Parts: sequence; structure tokens; C-alpha cells
Amino acid sequence: MDIKALRNETPGCKHVNHLNNAGAALMPQPVIDAVQNYFLEEANYGGYETAAKHEREVEQFYEASARLLGCKPTNIAFTTNATDSYDKALSALEFKEGDVVLLSKNDYPSNFISLLSIQKRIGIKLVEINNTDTGEIDLEDLEAKIKQYHPRLLSITHIPTSSGLVQPVNEIGNIVKNYDLLYLLDACQSIGQMEVDALSTQADFISGTFRKFLRGPRGSGILYASDKALTQGLSPLYLDMRGADWINEQHYKTRDDARRFELWEFSYANILGSKVAIEYALKLGMQNIWERNQHLTALLKTELAAAGMTLQDRGKVQSSIVTFTMPVKTTGEKVKKYLNDKGINVNFTSKSVAIIDFEEKGIDWAVRVSPHYYNTEEEIFSLVEALKEFI
Amino acid sequence: MDIKALRNETPGCKHVNHLNNAGAALMPQPVIDAVQNYFLEEANYGGYETAAKHEREVEQFYEASARLLGCKPTNIAFTTNATDSYDKALSALEFKEGDVVLLSKNDYPSNFISLLSIQKRIGIKLVEINNTDTGEIDLEDLEAKIKQYHPRLLSITHIPTSSGLVQPVNEIGNIVKNYDLLYLLDACQSIGQMEVDALSTQADFISGTFRKFLRGPRGSGILYASDKALTQGLSPLYLDMRGADWINEQHYKTRDDARRFELWEFSYANILGSKVAIEYALKLGMQNIWERNQHLTALLKTELAAAGMTLQDRGKVQSSIVTFTMPVKTTGEKVKKYLNDKGINVNFTSKSVAIIDFEEKGIDWAVRVSPHYYNTEEEIFSLVEALKEFI
Repeated sequence: MDIKALRNETPGCKHVNHLNNAGAALMPQPVIDAVQNYFLEEANYGGYETAAKHEREVEQFYEASARLLGCKPTNIAFTTNATDSYDKALSALEFKEGDVVLLSKNDYPSNFISLLSIQKRIGIKLVEINNTDTGEIDLEDLEAKIKQYHPRLLSITHIPTSSGLVQPVNEIGNIVKNYDLLYLLDACQSIGQMEVDALSTQADFISGTFRKFLRGPRGSGILYASDKALTQGLSPLYLDMRGADWINEQHYKTRDDARRFELWEFSYANILGSKVAIEYALKLGMQNIWERNQHLTALLKTELAAAGMTLQDRGKVQSSIVTFTMPVKTTGEKVKKYLNDKGINVNFTSKSVAIIDFEEKGIDWAVRVSPHYYNTEEEIFSLVEALKEFI
Repeated sequence: MDIKALRNETPGCKHVNHLNNAGAALMPQPVIDAVQNYFLEEANYGGYETAAKHEREVEQFYEASARLLGCKPTNIAFTTNATDSYDKALSALEFKEGDVVLLSKNDYPSNFISLLSIQKRIGIKLVEINNTDTGEIDLEDLEAKIKQYHPRLLSITHIPTSSGLVQPVNEIGNIVKNYDLLYLLDACQSIGQMEVDALSTQADFISGTFRKFLRGPRGSGILYASDKALTQGLSPLYLDMRGADWINEQHYKTRDDARRFELWEFSYANILGSKVAIEYALKLGMQNIWERNQHLTALLKTELAAAGMTLQDRGKVQSSIVTFTMPVKTTGEKVKKYLNDKGINVNFTSKSVAIIDFEEKGIDWAVRVSPHYYNTEEEIFSLVEALKEFI
């Protein structure tokens, strides 16, 4: 990877030391151009008229997404964000009172909230899978609970928002495939930093976003729906003229492919920016991105530990999300602001969005640093120096 | 109104004769700038960092929306589009089997499809209100059906996508307020071309979009939720960390205001563009916009009729959507393409999206022309000339 060239085509690298890629990454110039140029064309010629002209490029979004996830374009829907994708998948399940949903203790808080809302409305039951000593879900407990509860759904967050943990999603799929339940994988923090191969995960639905490690525009998400889910007729509860044809006052016909999960209207500038973001990542190669990120996070962790920080990440495999606590009494707001004022972008995680995980770890908050391949060793040193000064 | 000045700050006016404002209008320069500048700032400084810096401007979106609809900022949620708003409002109702939804025969097809999906899932019953001779819903029939069916919900599309009809939404509200049901108003085609005063409509929910007569960016919508709806605890079925705080593994707390209907992630460039679009419309004055549009559509209808077209719009009050059929045998695609090639943007409506209305009118399709205040008399003459040539 030619890091210098990659930084040259990332205008943000001139302005900030951006270590908040798990929040939203800096977009590369080709993505910026795709969004801006399309938007200006809309302004000059009209929204629908411009969309009609770029119909082929819009199709390429589905083709690029299919290459990214190792599936077919017909398995892909464009959404607004990962939660939107997750909720649309959830809405396809006709839950009955007493239905069980299995999930990990590290599932994303928003996913917990949507499931709790369904629990309140319909009376489903949420059952958490135990973790192993290294933090991943315990595969034996998963299988035991599948046998015990006969769940309708398994929900797994591939990489949590608040730690570097990576769940063994393919091994999970190997268990799930033997039973009659659906597998919903939230890949919001994983796509773009590591390979997510839909067929290897054996997931029925995968939700993802573009603004994070894929370096796409905000307000853009993706939903993968497996052939099994589509042929079973799983459809979102709320459809519109994109997802279905209106037949008459009593009937509509749902479309065959995953676009049944889309609504008619969305930002066409963003779908084209997302397409370019995928193509950009695929050109670099997901394995190259992963290796570069592993190199940067290893360096970051060594330097943080040497500077007296306590690393908080668990997992046999750890991602580009690095969390740690400080050796002095302070607040996340103060650390973030101190660094931001020096042009260093990081975030912090409060216990309120990592209740189970942080309870177990016995911490109230942690600093979250999330480098991506375009970051440099110098940027990491500079962060650690600033943290030392802060202390 | 200084039409020349308004056109000068609408770059699209240099390129096209845009009479497809019911599809998506041409954005004015201040809207374009708001979106583009914000997006570039995200690219230069990071998505979340830029959002934090512009927090106050984001709040102004809710304040501007409140001025537009005559309500409080706490009644407003930002969404992706009008259907998204409509579906989120629908999701707040805990329908039981046998519940009745009243709706007009001219409700938007996508709304029909979502309701039919709920019908399929839960077994609700859809009951249509009869029309008067002039095409609006019959207020006596509305009241009779409320008394007969005790509906949970009344769904009304203010202005249909396929005709100039304007429903008497305030008169409807005056009836509904005497009964125990919710009133969901789809104002997708009305906000931006006429005053929609939330309190006067007495609606519980109002859905709207920005790309049409408000001249905002695509992929942007609005949902109004009344104080009554909010205090009754009506919340969307799917919430995330925007709409609720996660308390623990079994509880969450829904936020008090209408932003409970939002998801955490959306396009911040678009919310700021939408804010500017509202401010732009309010500065011109909704009454001025309405009067100018009434002038243009009156001229358009006179010229169309004189050129041998058959006007298809009904209603005591008619909007900026003008539909007509041709005196020669042809197709909507052909007419649209012929005009598009001459730089004239119009659309056509097929019976498949106006099944009930076009069945009654005995037509299979109609040309749809939708001028907005920045259009000129010359542009209308030029359209009619082109239609004459086509014939």
C-alpha cells in the first residue's frame, strides 16, 4: 500500500489526525467527487431526470456490494444506515408472543433497544449467550441454548462499537445452519476493515454502514438478504412502490430481490458515493487493509501500554477499535476535547452504551481510538505523546 | 416575487424547463451551498467532529420546521422521505386483528401497500371513504364511517401524486377531533406549495418530503407528531439510541420529543440543506408561493385545453399538479421522452399507481405537469407548443 498516495487523495489528512474511523472515516477524493458531482447534476437538470441518466451506475452499486460480500446483486438493498438495515430485517419476522431471540452480550445497544421494543409490544423473550474467557460468545452455550429455547432468531454484532472484540461469525454460522432459526449479523463496524463473506457467515441477513471503515458518505447503509430469506418470502413489514407493485385495493406483489427492503426515495448522490467507496476498498484489497490495520493497532497498543494506559479490549482476534482507560481521574469529554483541540480525533465510550461489557470490566468509560489503513505511525506516536501530556 | 432573481439563484433554470416539481424540484443555490459546504467540511475534518461543530444549526432545522408547520420544535423528526415518515407513524400504532383503518380512495399507493402489508400480517381492515362529485372525500360519509367502524386510524393524502386534487384536511380535522381515533396526514405533495398548519389540520401525524415543492435535497423527510401523540406515548416500533436511552438488559427510556422517531444516523448535509430549504420558502411566504402557482396552473390549463388536451384534475381547490390526456394515441414514455429531448421535464402517471382514480376517470395514463413559482409563463407556452408539435 502506498500510504502517501492514499493520504494525498484524502483531503482530510491535511487537516486532522483522524483516529475516529469507527465513528466516521475520512472520505477519499473519488467518493467526495462522486457525491458532489452527482448532486450538482441534480441541481442543474432535476432529480429524477439525473437518476434516469445514471441508471446503469446505480445498478453498479448492487454489483459492487455483491463483490464486497461475495453474493449476488439480487441479495443487496441500499438503506440509510446499519440500524435501518437491522430494523428492516427484524420487521420481516412475524414474531409471536413467547418467541425467543438469542443474542450476544456485546450486541449493539440500538439492536438491544429495538428488540426490547418488540418484547414490550409482542412479548418475545431475549436470551443472552454466555461469553468465553476471551470475550467471544461461547459456541457450546450457543448450541445448548438453541436446543433449549428453539429461538426464532440469533442476533450477533460482528464487532461491538465499544471494544476491539471480533465475534467468530463463520463458526457461529456452522452451528446455526443445523437448526431452524434465522441469523441476523450486524456488520456495521466490520465491513471495510475485514472480509465479510456472506456465504461463509451463513447469515440470513447482514446489516452494514458506509460512513465507517468503508469511508463512504453519511446516511448510507446496506442490507444483505440471503437467497433462503428471499425465497422464504421474508419481506419488511412496511413496503412501498419500490418493494412492491400495487395490484389493486386489496393486493400488492412483492418484488423478488432484496430491494423489497428499500423505500422508493433515497439520496442518489449517496448510493453513488457508496458504490465508489466499495470499489475503492476492493481495489486496495480487504486482506491488505486488515493487515495494515493490524500493524497500526499493534503499534498503538504497545505505545499506549508503555505510556501507562490500561487496554480494555478482549478477544482472540481484535479489530481496529482500541479502547483503554486512563491512569488518572478524568472524564471522556475532557480527554476527547484535549485531543480534538490538538487536531486529533478520537471518541470515548460511556457505560450507558456498553452496560454489560463495562459492568464486567468494572469500568465506567473508555477512550476509543480507531485507526484505519491511511493513518500513519507518526499519527499514533503523536496521539500517545498528547495523552502523556494530558496526564 | 422577483421571478428573475429567483431564477438567477436557481442554476438549473439555465439548463432545463423544469415542470416536474411534483417529482423533485430544482434546488436554489442556498440549498446547494448548504449541502455541498457541509459535506466538504465533513471530508476535511471528520463526520462526527463536523456535526458537533454545527450542533446549533442542526437545532435550527427543528425550529424552521416548527415555523413551517405552526408547531413546536419538539413535534418534529427528520427522516429519509415521506414514506419513511408515514411508516414510522404507522409503526407507533399497536394494531390488533380487526382494527379498522379509514382512508381516502386517493391515498398514495405506497401508503396503501404498507397498510395492506399490515392487513396481511395482523388482519386489520381497510375501509375507503366515498368521494363527493367534485372528487374530495365526502365528509358526511367520513363521519358515518367513523361512527359505524370505530376506526383506530384515518389516513389521508393531502394532495395525490397523480392529480391536482386537494383534500379538505382542516374540515376533516374538525370531524375527527370529536372521536377517538388517530389522524395521519400525508403532506408529501402539499408542503412547500401551500400552507400546512399542523394545529389547524388537527392531525396526530404529518409526513412530508423535501425534494418536491420545498426544493430541498433528495433523501430527506419530515415527520410531525402532535403533543397528543407524544404524551399518549406513541413511539415507533423500532427505536435506537437516538430515540431512547438504554437503561439495562431489560429496559430503555424513550425520549420525550418527536425525535424518538429518528434513527441515530442520517445525512447531516441533508438536514442542513433541508433547514435552508424551509427558510427559503418561508422568506418567500407560503401564500405568495400558492398565489403564484395558482396563476401559473390557471394559464397552463387554459393553454392545454386550447391545444386539445383533456384536463383530468378534479377538486374544488386544485394544486400545482396538472394532469391531462392527449388527443392522439401514444404512450406516456413517448411524450415524456419527446419533451425531455427538448429540455422540458415532465412526468406521466400510469394507472398502476392511480388504480382507483384512473379507473373512475376511465383512463390508463396521464401526462403530469407540475410548475412551481420559479417557472415562467414562457416556459408554459413552450411546453404547450412542444405538445402541439408532438401531436
